Amino acid sequence: MSTNELARKVMERIEALGCISEETDRLTRTYGSPAMRRANDLVASWMRDAGLTVSEDAVGNLLGRYPGDDERVFLLGSHLDTVRDAGKFDGPLGVLAAIACVEYLREQKRRLPFALEVIAFADEEGARFQTTYLGSRAMAGTLKEPDLKRFDARGVTLSEAIRAFGGDPDKLDSARRDPQPLLGYAEVHIEQGPVLEKKYQPVGIVTAIAGQTRIRARFAGQAGHAGTTPMALRRDALAAAAQFITAVETCANARADLVATVGEIDARPGASNVIPGEVVLSVDVRHAQDSIRQDACDKLREIAQQIGEKRGIAVDWEVVHDVQSVPCSRELSQLLAKAARKHLMEVTELTSGAGHDAAAMGDITPVTMLFVRCQGGISHHPDESVAVEDVEVAIAVMNDFLQLLANQQYPFSGKKHGAT
Amino acid sequence: MSTNELARKVMERIEALGCISEETDRLTRTYGSPAMRRANDLVASWMRDAGLTVSEDAVGNLLGRYPGDDERVFLLGSHLDTVRDAGKFDGPLGVLAAIACVEYLREQKRRLPFALEVIAFADEEGARFQTTYLGSRAMAGTLKEPDLKRFDARGVTLSEAIRAFGGDPDKLDSARRDPQPLLGYAEVHIEQGPVLEKKYQPVGIVTAIAGQTRIRARFAGQAGHAGTTPMALRRDALAAAAQFITAVETCANARADLVATVGEIDARPGASNVIPGEVVLSVDVRHAQDSIRQDACDKLREIAQQIGEKRGIAVDWEVVHDVQSVPCSRELSQLLAKAARKHLMEVTELTSGAGHDAAAMGDITPVTMLFVRCQGGISHHPDESVAVEDVEVAIAVMNDFLQLLANQQYPFSGKKHGAT
Repeated sequence: MSTNELARKVMERIEALGCISEETDRLTRTYGSPAMRRANDLVASWMRDAGLTVSEDAVGNLLGRYPGDDERVFLLGSHLDTVRDAGKFDGPLGVLAAIACVEYLREQKRRLPFALEVIAFADEEGARFQTTYLGSRAMAGTLKEPDLKRFDARGVTLSEAIRAFGGDPDKLDSARRDPQPLLGYAEVHIEQGPVLEKKYQPVGIVTAIAGQTRIRARFAGQAGHAGTTPMALRRDALAAAAQFITAVETCANARADLVATVGEIDARPGASNVIPGEVVLSVDVRHAQDSIRQDACDKLREIAQQIGEKRGIAVDWEVVHDVQSVPCSRELSQLLAKAARKHLMEVTELTSGAGHDAAAMGDITPVTMLFVRCQGGISHHPDESVAVEDVEVAIAVMNDFLQLLANQQYPFSGKKHGAT
Repeated sequence: MSTNELARKVMERIEALGCISEETDRLTRTYGSPAMRRANDLVASWMRDAGLTVSEDAVGNLLGRYPGDDERVFLLGSHLDTVRDAGKFDGPLGVLAAIACVEYLREQKRRLPFALEVIAFADEEGARFQTTYLGSRAMAGTLKEPDLKRFDARGVTLSEAIRAFGGDPDKLDSARRDPQPLLGYAEVHIEQGPVLEKKYQPVGIVTAIAGQTRIRARFAGQAGHAGTTPMALRRDALAAAAQFITAVETCANARADLVATVGEIDARPGASNVIPGEVVLSVDVRHAQDSIRQDACDKLREIAQQIGEKRGIAVDWEVVHDVQSVPCSRELSQLLAKAARKHLMEVTELTSGAGHDAAAMGDITPVTMLFVRCQGGISHHPDESVAVEDVEVAIAVMNDFLQLLANQQYPFSGKKHGAT
């Protein structure tokens, strides 16, 4: 099959997976759900069709192995779970593109010096248990006993959900991969942003997965009657918060590639004729360089305090989430770029502002990612869309990348693995 | 009884009324509720004790008449309904202070040249039917047929509620007062703001009830991933709204006595990792002078449009409520100030930023109001509090006001009544 035919096949399979949902009117496929079971089973059948030896690990990650000349393994993959009311491409694209690459090799009756393993992670979005990378963390050995006690909205623990899904929470360790034979991990993924579209590029090379700090800031002033309280006597929590939100934007604009977002805001009591006495808001700060992100957070906290002091408003600042950035392996990303240059005049490098399984896998092996252009930058939404032509470019680039990889020296440098 | 004894009696009665609620754990007394029935009956008994002839009009306003030398009538009053989770003073204070004034006259076996009528309005807050001044508008003749079709949260129409309360919606006209014999209306009310407290004044003279514009503004940008959308490619509706909220505050600060408040804000979709695509917020603008309020609204709309244009964000601007200011009668307020000067070194004049029955009554007769200091400016809240000493000053001032009034030339000038 040509890469064009493979791309069309990937698109058909994405459509098929897009119909497998736990909700009737929209696409939602969370960890351990019956829909997830059906998705795993369907993808397993496609893996077998492609000549892969299929297995599931203790948490339900699906693995398809294509043997190589020796026991070393290169991993390809992404996830099959979705957010609620999801698009079809986020996750499945990477799994199906990986299967397509194996089909391509198999049709040519070729083996690589190393085995290929296609992984379909069982949970990346964390929609059910409110924690991301369940699947890839299990594989990286960073999912721990206490995580098993998390429970979903119905009170089902992760441990129970694993068992119901056919896994075994008591054998969490067995899901952990020995880093020794691993050469690396490469993930194809929808960009989920507008950068490639703006640059007219079908694909881009990811240099790092940005670190992220999520803050919960609370501004406590004093509620009061909107008609009877003169401006000079107010301690308006929303006026303070508005000043802060403007500062968040200014701060992010001042530094290349820094993004900072206030996505949630709740003003209480929340009546048109009452001065807000309390505002709680979220701040999300991301950058590929941890020091820049940390500096930005420190500065924003200082600004919030200053605004509060000037207005007689108490400011609480709670860091609720703090994840370091994960650099992609320079060697792997350079190989990917080299492969991309065979198909494109210009190769775009970008950092990933969103988290991916690659971030978790970075703990045990060098990682790289290939982003595929996304229409209008829309993701986590039914309108999420990728063009078949771009999928074809992605498959062609990955085919060439695997070929280049076969001719390389190993191992590669990664997050914690050094250029040994 | 001394004014001190009368004040303590008013406080005791406020406590008693504060226990009459349609909810077990907090004070809520909405129009037509069984609690309202009990409140009307209790106040009617106090009116009778004070020698008043009691009646209820077609919507349930309670009236107590103290005869005078002729058929002219001066009205005193306030309302007995409350907001949900209310304080005890907002409304009842004015009704009970008025009854105290009559008791004071009666004990001295004095009549005035005109009759006094104490009115306990059945609805000012509008908590049940989401429209204010049901009682006073019925009396002023501005409550109309279509209003009777309004319904509450359970689908009960106002018409049905009036009937269930013992009134008669078919006789709405009978509640309307003939303006001819009316000399004016005076209302004692808790300030509901911090001005008198800041000035160390027990009472203050209201010069006008501010006009009010309420706007619903909508900022429509584009939602996007907080990690993957560079700052330069965003159309963040909350960043735009924050800039606007800051401008609202600046605009109000620039003009004496102008107040502008953003009390409600809803950012959608409202997730920490999603750039808000849409923000809806409320703007409440008030001033005693209508032209100043209108200018401020025009300016704010222009600022919102400019912010929107610069950011590629569509701005909807809907005026959902627009009420003209109601000036108090200059003569009545001067008389009230003269009475106050007998008890105070300094007399504070202020405008009312909140609406009151006096605003509706202004349509048929000259009005004035006496505000009573309110602890911490807190109102519409269980912590609402007024000191007995301040109630005593209010009663003393009202007694002297009625005395001065008895010696005056009539009629007085008011909103629409001219100095004929």
